[in-house]
Amino acid sequence: MRTARIVFDGQIHTVTPHADGVRLPDGRVLAENQVLWLPPVVPGTIFALGLNYADHAKELAFKPPEEPLVFLKGPNALTGHRGQTRRPVGVKFMHYECELVAVIGREARRVKREDALSYVGGYTVANDYAIRDYLENFYRPNLRVKNRDACTPLGPWLVSADEVADPQALALTTTVNGRLTQQGNTRDMVFPVALLIEYLSSFMTLKPGDIILTGTPDGVVDCQPGDEVVTEIEGIGRLVNTIVS
Amino acid sequence: MRTARIVFDGQIHTVTPHADGVRLPDGRVLAENQVLWLPPVVPGTIFALGLNYADHAKELAFKPPEEPLVFLKGPNALTGHRGQTRRPVGVKFMHYECELVAVIGREARRVKREDALSYVGGYTVANDYAIRDYLENFYRPNLRVKNRDACTPLGPWLVSADEVADPQALALTTTVNGRLTQQGNTRDMVFPVALLIEYLSSFMTLKPGDIILTGTPDGVVDCQPGDEVVTEIEGIGRLVNTIVS
Repeated sequence: MRTARIVFDGQIHTVTPHADGVRLPDGRVLAENQVLWLPPVVPGTIFALGLNYADHAKELAFKPPEEPLVFLKGPNALTGHRGQTRRPVGVKFMHYECELVAVIGREARRVKREDALSYVGGYTVANDYAIRDYLENFYRPNLRVKNRDACTPLGPWLVSADEVADPQALALTTTVNGRLTQQGNTRDMVFPVALLIEYLSSFMTLKPGDIILTGTPDGVVDCQPGDEVVTEIEGIGRLVNTIVS
Repeated sequence: MRTARIVFDGQIHTVTPHADGVRLPDGRVLAENQVLWLPPVVPGTIFALGLNYADHAKELAFKPPEEPLVFLKGPNALTGHRGQTRRPVGVKFMHYECELVAVIGREARRVKREDALSYVGGYTVANDYAIRDYLENFYRPNLRVKNRDACTPLGPWLVSADEVADPQALALTTTVNGRLTQQGNTRDMVFPVALLIEYLSSFMTLKPGDIILTGTPDGVVDCQPGDEVVTEIEGIGRLVNTIVS
């Protein structure tokens, strides 16, 4: 099952896909650009991973980590499909990051990796932009790098876990203005989704609605105002974002 | 005005102080130990500061930071007054941190320091425990150090900002089993509350209910199961916590 959250006529609706756009619960069909897209889940804790693809770590001249490098994001950072993300004036390097997102479906505490995927309610796509100028520590990026308003588009769809046969075998791509700039596969994660859930739940409780942004493969490039950045994950969704100044 | 949130008879109530404990909206008075205390606010984003008192930074053999060292915490980390916090089995060093907490009262974006305190709705007390064993980076502590369930007691009272003449002139003390172990004053913050709000709101929007834990002075010691740890801030509150295994 696929659901999204949108605003139409001043109301929030949960919608499903339709060949011509989205379908409201009352049956009305609206075009994709007729609605305001929200993140498809109202998140609890937002976890994000640093350096979780060995090729991306290498691209940044780092060894892959021996333990998951997890940091938190605030809800202000999220925006929806077809949203706008600001490039701050005067910065030198802002890059996108196409990431598979696991959404926790039920409370998880001390879960073993072999059971971990049964705690995932669904998956979606994130673009976890970074303002590289302010990065003084790759292992735990600060808020000016990773927590600006609307710096993390999420969506468009929440895809229920039963529709995803193997979350570790999905192609990821990013295009900037139609040009392919990032290409990877979730099989190359250093710590796959099941291990991340085992790790986090070993010392804290994961709650329904908590989301885990699982990191990005190599191929990050600088983006400029006016760029349309599309992050896409096979079988999960195609997330469109525009950069403004 | 002072308010707390408590559970009594299976319901959440907002209460006010009374000489014999707490006063429910319907006038009933209950003893402090008759109720379950919740954090006095339902938090949005939870910001916490590292090394924000020069003496504490020195105690840990660091130079005070040149920019606020802010990290985020998840809602799972909070617990209320008279709550229990677990010391994980086998760790070597768990220390308390008495901290003044500023609660944002209205939306703040690009606020100047001279206006910043008018964006504070109130203040409360936190005890931001740290599990030092897992600390590989003082500048941005990881989740095993700072984000375990119930590792951050908050409360008991939310004290409205109009009752706090100067948030930068408040004595802080911590006692462990009645013995004074930490003593400081908010005047010694490296970045006072007004500067923290100016800093954070310069690159993101602060929302009502966001809370800022402003760091701790020197005098942190190891705590053991069975210890009663009382963190107190002059005019704001006296927060009691017990450590269990």
